[in-house]
Amino acid sequence: MSSHSEQFASDNCSGICPEALEYMIQANQGSAPAYGNDEWTQKATDYFRELFEIDCEVFFTFNGTAANSLSLAALCQSYHSVICHETAHIETDECGAPEFASNGSKLLLAKGENGKLTPQAIEAIVTRRADIHYPKPKVISITQSTELGTLYSIEELLAIKEIARKYNLKIHMDGARFANAVAAMNKSPAEMTWKSGVDVLCFCGTKNGMALGEAILFFNKALAEDFDYRCKQAGQLASKMRFISAPWLGLLETGAWLKNARHANQCAEYLENQLLNIESVEIMFPREANAVFVKLPEHVIQSLKGKNWQFYTFIGVGGVRFMCSWNTTQSKIDELLRDIKEAIASQSKVQSR
Amino acid sequence: MSSHSEQFASDNCSGICPEALEYMIQANQGSAPAYGNDEWTQKATDYFRELFEIDCEVFFTFNGTAANSLSLAALCQSYHSVICHETAHIETDECGAPEFASNGSKLLLAKGENGKLTPQAIEAIVTRRADIHYPKPKVISITQSTELGTLYSIEELLAIKEIARKYNLKIHMDGARFANAVAAMNKSPAEMTWKSGVDVLCFCGTKNGMALGEAILFFNKALAEDFDYRCKQAGQLASKMRFISAPWLGLLETGAWLKNARHANQCAEYLENQLLNIESVEIMFPREANAVFVKLPEHVIQSLKGKNWQFYTFIGVGGVRFMCSWNTTQSKIDELLRDIKEAIASQSKVQSR
Amino acid sequence: MSSHSEQFASDNCSGICPEALEYMIQANQGSAPAYGNDEWTQKATDYFRELFEIDCEVFFTFNGTAANSLSLAALCQSYHSVICHETAHIETDECGAPEFASNGSKLLLAKGENGKLTPQAIEAIVTRRADIHYPKPKVISITQSTELGTLYSIEELLAIKEIARKYNLKIHMDGARFANAVAAMNKSPAEMTWKSGVDVLCFCGTKNGMALGEAILFFNKALAEDFDYRCKQAGQLASKMRFISAPWLGLLETGAWLKNARHANQCAEYLENQLLNIESVEIMFPREANAVFVKLPEHVIQSLKGKNWQFYTFIGVGGVRFMCSWNTTQSKIDELLRDIKEAIASQSKVQSR
Amino acid sequence: MSSHSEQFASDNCSGICPEALEYMIQANQGSAPAYGNDEWTQKATDYFRELFEIDCEVFFTFNGTAANSLSLAALCQSYHSVICHETAHIETDECGAPEFASNGSKLLLAKGENGKLTPQAIEAIVTRRADIHYPKPKVISITQSTELGTLYSIEELLAIKEIARKYNLKIHMDGARFANAVAAMNKSPAEMTWKSGVDVLCFCGTKNGMALGEAILFFNKALAEDFDYRCKQAGQLASKMRFISAPWLGLLETGAWLKNARHANQCAEYLENQLLNIESVEIMFPREANAVFVKLPEHVIQSLKGKNWQFYTFIGVGGVRFMCSWNTTQSKIDELLRDIKEAIASQSKVQSR
Repeated sequence: MSSHSEQFASDNCSGICPEALEYMIQANQGSAPAYGNDEWTQKATDYFRELFEIDCEVFFTFNGTAANSLSLAALCQSYHSVICHETAHIETDECGAPEFASNGSKLLLAKGENGKLTPQAIEAIVTRRADIHYPKPKVISITQSTELGTLYSIEELLAIKEIARKYNLKIHMDGARFANAVAAMNKSPAEMTWKSGVDVLCFCGTKNGMALGEAILFFNKALAEDFDYRCKQAGQLASKMRFISAPWLGLLETGAWLKNARHANQCAEYLENQLLNIESVEIMFPREANAVFVKLPEHVIQSLKGKNWQFYTFIGVGGVRFMCSWNTTQSKIDELLRDIKEAIASQSKVQSR
Repeated sequence: MSSHSEQFASDNCSGICPEALEYMIQANQGSAPAYGNDEWTQKATDYFRELFEIDCEVFFTFNGTAANSLSLAALCQSYHSVICHETAHIETDECGAPEFASNGSKLLLAKGENGKLTPQAIEAIVTRRADIHYPKPKVISITQSTELGTLYSIEELLAIKEIARKYNLKIHMDGARFANAVAAMNKSPAEMTWKSGVDVLCFCGTKNGMALGEAILFFNKALAEDFDYRCKQAGQLASKMRFISAPWLGLLETGAWLKNARHANQCAEYLENQLLNIESVEIMFPREANAVFVKLPEHVIQSLKGKNWQFYTFIGVGGVRFMCSWNTTQSKIDELLRDIKEAIASQSKVQSR
Repeated sequence: MSSHSEQFASDNCSGICPEALEYMIQANQGSAPAYGNDEWTQKATDYFRELFEIDCEVFFTFNGTAANSLSLAALCQSYHSVICHETAHIETDECGAPEFASNGSKLLLAKGENGKLTPQAIEAIVTRRADIHYPKPKVISITQSTELGTLYSIEELLAIKEIARKYNLKIHMDGARFANAVAAMNKSPAEMTWKSGVDVLCFCGTKNGMALGEAILFFNKALAEDFDYRCKQAGQLASKMRFISAPWLGLLETGAWLKNARHANQCAEYLENQLLNIESVEIMFPREANAVFVKLPEHVIQSLKGKNWQFYTFIGVGGVRFMCSWNTTQSKIDELLRDIKEAIASQSKVQSR
Repeated sequence: MSSHSEQFASDNCSGICPEALEYMIQANQGSAPAYGNDEWTQKATDYFRELFEIDCEVFFTFNGTAANSLSLAALCQSYHSVICHETAHIETDECGAPEFASNGSKLLLAKGENGKLTPQAIEAIVTRRADIHYPKPKVISITQSTELGTLYSIEELLAIKEIARKYNLKIHMDGARFANAVAAMNKSPAEMTWKSGVDVLCFCGTKNGMALGEAILFFNKALAEDFDYRCKQAGQLASKMRFISAPWLGLLETGAWLKNARHANQCAEYLENQLLNIESVEIMFPREANAVFVKLPEHVIQSLKGKNWQFYTFIGVGGVRFMCSWNTTQSKIDELLRDIKEAIASQSKVQSR
């Protein structure tokens, strides 16, 4: 029963949500122009412009690794560098994709609480070196919501914008879970992006309920020059584009993008609240979107694994990540909580003997 | 009515065939492991091995540009070169993707009748230069069926195999329309590939009826070392892989891959046969798969365009390409033929006045 | 006796001219700041600005392959293309260096008499394709003097400038033998470059009499942004830069650059004039700088090789290239001529029997 | 007087040593075959083989950045990674050259006392991740002598060799100051390289007394396949190669390479010994080759700078590096020591008032 086994590992273990699927099937009527010259792509593109309240350039890629690495490559040359948090997905989980797409740009890693960059950390990196023997910083990359499930507030974004302007840096936002951030913050997509200085956003559809597909939004249109060529050359131009753009339209037009994100966030909130009632459990980072990071005793982790629960663990720190998704159910969370409690209780018994 | 407008432009204007769609929907049951660790991917992979009668390495990418360029990059370094026909898609329509993926490999272009490389042309290129000031040939790339709608016979493939062995070259097959080739040649996939010396095949699912998806088969497994890392780094690893692999399984398991290809080939054959009966029409290349290339008088081309027929034209030579697909209908072909005849007749009337 | 054996092969077989050597030795006084922060580099840089009558950006690289490929990479992205003549050195003799440095830019080859691009040929390439499936032209690369020993006149350069402006293309000049061109044309360096629309010049010192070293001059300074980082990253920043810049200053300040070039040109002119007096010898291209291309009977070519003469041959066309250099001597030319005549005469005797 | 001003900044501020210069001038007799087909290159190559007691493959590049990055690129693909110390020059001072040359390989940084990698640190990195979302380690890069002026003992090298074999990693040695290491350790070049598991060595000639030039020695010849093409493509093939290879021969044949290195080491030892006698001065790392790292009071550093002494400082730690070279003199060291003592004394007076 594979459907049983991936419950809290990642939101990319979930399937296609009904709205995305319905639009995909609708788009499957007869033939259509290839390479994005179809009506669905035009409509989805326009919808993004409306949603973000700006005439931005919109591109679609197959996945987030491509979206991040190609958009970063558009912001810097091979001898430039990208400042990001040491836990950034582009650093830890894309197998050197940014370096490959840019032909060598270096990622400069900053520390920062709760997975977030700070203006101070950025400035420290920028001012550390100013000679040609070290790649020149050109871009700040931030993830919203972060890899640790936290959120940059508008104030934090504006502070980063300020430091970016001071040092002539562009801002890239990895929006792997951008929908979850919007749902959580109750701010408009515009406020959370270009009004806060973001030059380009990679908005992930896959984790939000699509089969696959990412939208890249260049709010700074000058940076998008010939970006369509870049996508094509990098193997990211879908011939039957409508099967990416139509599901996107499905998410956007029906409001499913927010509904899915809200559901996932609420699941995480519920899980967090329940966990807070359990002794021996420690929440690691503020739970602000759809991920809950907790420290569990090692025997509890092993017990959960023995019962085939799926989740990421962090070696050495005793931490685990529970990720909620559009299709997470309360009953599944309750099952998980029950098993956690049981594992803790059984150990207590052993110890009390 | 966009569905009306892309009839003979390309087989990538067609939608998803029923079998691929059904399997995709079946695969959308609950959650599943990401990144290809799901059951669908395992099954599709095994099916390819069975179909090709060999324990090959199988990888999935999003599209053909990626499949071709990454597999070529696996066969050569940046200072090596790839020999291909001057009409090869990798040269004419991938925006420098092979050069990008390999960080600079050069494509060396050969001429050859009907879009096909010959051992003589390959040898001429290999022996032309042997100094370090020119990239060293390492790979032969052939397209089956070719960009001109023709087929390499088994004998032709074996002759190329021989020259490849003589000069220690690897053989890459661009199988954008490999299914059509198999359907037309009545040979086994094994005979048409590894038994004929092919080291790696890029088997296109998109044109065969999927929403998107390409399978890369390394028959020479040594060449596939760490290829999964390459795919990941290049942004070609789908997180929800099952939505590529399940449709593939749908095509393969139900036999739709061959049924679709046969249908397209038969449509093209029918179209060709009818065209042969029309004066002023000249078939340009042997029609062997699902494409018909014909020379039409310029006024006929204009007339067809005026009636919103979609097809590729070749500047200066008066040639047009009519591509048939899994969803081409005889009635649509008859409409096209009627319009061609009318256009010719109307001009004849004008001329005869 | 290797000194005997490389007489007409290439001007890169010659050694260091006295002026370059003298300045190199002068520069070898004690220690000096590294990486170009020394006085010699400052002086040489300023001298270039004076010589070209413009405040250009000047960089030094080790060789011409690097100069060409890095400057081209500065003018275009990986999904762009460079228009050049099919005999251009960047295409035929740099082992894919431009593609490597730019991470995939394609060279689009034009034909043209006497090794020269024409506005018509450029326009034909630019207008041939305008879709994203083919790399977008961004640069025109011309070689002055050309690989066939001919020269672009100022009028020809201006005509190319016009077409470049029309299509928003940058102009790169490969000045492997720029000094020879200046010496031959009696025009100022400024007239021959930026006044004729050239954006960047790669001025070769090696063939002009240095041990090694190339100067890259960006007349369009905006294009040189962060180019120092590019050089560093590509392994083209000399730590002991003075040993490249001082010899450059030696060439420039003493006038040796022109003296050497004039000498080489005159040698070629003398050789050409003498060859014109010999029957069975056919000059292939107008001899305008320091190279003479002639068709010789195959037995003559073999006879010369038998006597250890060194020169390039062109397979299949019976053509050979005699390249003159700053250290070519008339007596050596006379020897060569004598051997050519003898070879021809001996064969005539054979034939007349 | 720039010769005054670069005394202890770096050994690449020194000029050309007499032996290297003499051979360069000797090589400047008439013409010679280009691209390394000359006698000097053959002789230098053979000399390296003799010196290292093995039939290795030898290549020459212009500088160390190129040597390191191209040889690393030969050992790994873009989706692989290189393990090095966090102070490694390839990480801190080559502007992303390894990432560029390899099209994206990542450097994985390890800590380690005195600038040295340990088997434990290497193993920790190798075993940290084993999934395709992170570049696979393929190479260990060590610098001998290290960037902190220390040395790997033969035992340490053998321990690294063992861990390399365990995890199928190749070993690259950055020999920016390899001569200094040989001079200091009294071991044979063979013992210090291939007998200790080193696959490829980048042996720096520039810092050892040449104008420029690096030798790359592949002890594992299989790894050198087509490396000549790689050099050519990367703009690292000198046309007048003899002016790199002849000075190399000059260094080797006359023993100047060791003499220069010993001299530099002895200067550093003398400087260190004298510094140890001064209160307020703290040696930071064991002085084992030609660099002395010391902590000095900030006012002393400022005082030295005010007197135009040149050296590197390390922000925040109060550390400075004094690098000795083949042309360092004892009188200059004594001058430096006097100024340090004076600066310390003057401050003491201030404080004692």
